[in-house]
Amino acid sequence: MQSPVGSHEIEMLAQFADELADVTDAMAMTYFRKPLDVETKDDLSPVTQADRAIETAMRERITQRFPAHGVFGEEHENARLDAAHVWVLDPIDGTKSFVSGMPTFGTLIACLANGAPDIGIISIPPMAERWVGVRGQQSTLNGQPCRTSNRSQLAEATLYCTTPDIFDAEGRKKFETLSAQVGMRRFGGDCYAYGLLASGHVDLVFEMDLHPYDYMALVPVIEGAGGVITDWDGKALGLHSDGRVIAAANRALHAEALVAMS
Amino acid sequence: MQSPVGSHEIEMLAQFADELADVTDAMAMTYFRKPLDVETKDDLSPVTQADRAIETAMRERITQRFPAHGVFGEEHENARLDAAHVWVLDPIDGTKSFVSGMPTFGTLIACLANGAPDIGIISIPPMAERWVGVRGQQSTLNGQPCRTSNRSQLAEATLYCTTPDIFDAEGRKKFETLSAQVGMRRFGGDCYAYGLLASGHVDLVFEMDLHPYDYMALVPVIEGAGGVITDWDGKALGLHSDGRVIAAANRALHAEALVAMS
Repeated sequence: MQSPVGSHEIEMLAQFADELADVTDAMAMTYFRKPLDVETKDDLSPVTQADRAIETAMRERITQRFPAHGVFGEEHENARLDAAHVWVLDPIDGTKSFVSGMPTFGTLIACLANGAPDIGIISIPPMAERWVGVRGQQSTLNGQPCRTSNRSQLAEATLYCTTPDIFDAEGRKKFETLSAQVGMRRFGGDCYAYGLLASGHVDLVFEMDLHPYDYMALVPVIEGAGGVITDWDGKALGLHSDGRVIAAANRALHAEALVAMS
Repeated sequence: MQSPVGSHEIEMLAQFADELADVTDAMAMTYFRKPLDVETKDDLSPVTQADRAIETAMRERITQRFPAHGVFGEEHENARLDAAHVWVLDPIDGTKSFVSGMPTFGTLIACLANGAPDIGIISIPPMAERWVGVRGQQSTLNGQPCRTSNRSQLAEATLYCTTPDIFDAEGRKKFETLSAQVGMRRFGGDCYAYGLLASGHVDLVFEMDLHPYDYMALVPVIEGAGGVITDWDGKALGLHSDGRVIAAANRALHAEALVAMS
């Protein structure tokens, strides 16, 4: 059992994260399907004024409430990454979906304690769906407990990946090797695919070239729903992971996938 | 101007089609994210009891109201295809999305008069979004007029395709050639991508291996919103088209894409 102090703190932080998502959901919907200035960043990914404004709003609230906490975000400079608590933020995960009217984009919010993600939120504004993961607790979708599937055979698994365009030659080879052994694969989804995995609809997600703000929030959600999410070597994800991510509905499927793709 | 009789008939048929979509939307949602038996058809596409039950319900209503009309559906045998009016039905377009909890699947309903699609409906039950196209009228999304974008340059266009897995070698080459010239490409979407095109969020959709029940309903929606949808040779789509489909937001973009991919 956790100490009352630790438990109180994590509850307070989870409550704050949830309120933060209320703010960002409302902001995202004011921009969705409206004219936007789409710029291309150095890594060729798109960004809009919505991404920047939402991250700014999150940072202001975090800094006001927890001035000692660090912030690692997609659109602005990182701050105080040596703090005990660090917030990892993606204002719009799936900007390509967002700018093309596709309602599967989301906002990702993680709170790390000493480098490990204690709290994760996947919020999908157009669907009014929000997955919340808190260390040591059952994950929830809109307040109701959610669980991953018990499909433990690759041949019956549904595999998602946002786009094959993320892979380099080696990654593409592993992805095709894995794909050939699953029941079904589908592209598209962004962070939404990981939420669907936490609710038992999707069994595997396999991606590379992700950043900490793309994956840190997924960890508590998926682990607290019974799933497993690691890098391609099966190692825990952290701020310094290599961006290669595999999520599975359960331990057996994860182990089978790691063997199958190599 | 159409004759009052023709105009009255098309309004009556459009009203009936809309009521049909009310029924199928409600049915689809009773199956969505519930346990389903997923079978694999001869063409390797999945089918569930939901697909079959929804098409059966549509056929019963059509046959009861219009016993002389023909029906061309995905899941059951075609009937009376030589009739003046033929309904073309896809109970669940995007079954892979449907069975994996992704809310971008839809129901497609078309009514052909002498082979040409007079009425088309793209209904997305989880989003409560319905595009309706009627020959000679402005297309609508949930009753409000919708229009395609005026982006006429490939370099600023957003291209969608459900999955690269649909292409053969020649198709893949054309798709990659076209992709290299657009502003952005994204996978996933099924019929929803065509709805987003009719509303100006997506500019191009490029697919092959489609069946009449996948594309006939799209034609009135897209044309009535200002867009163009044809086969890859620029010819009008009909029951005997070859399943290679390109949709564009406007005539200039369509022409540019046809040249670019060849």
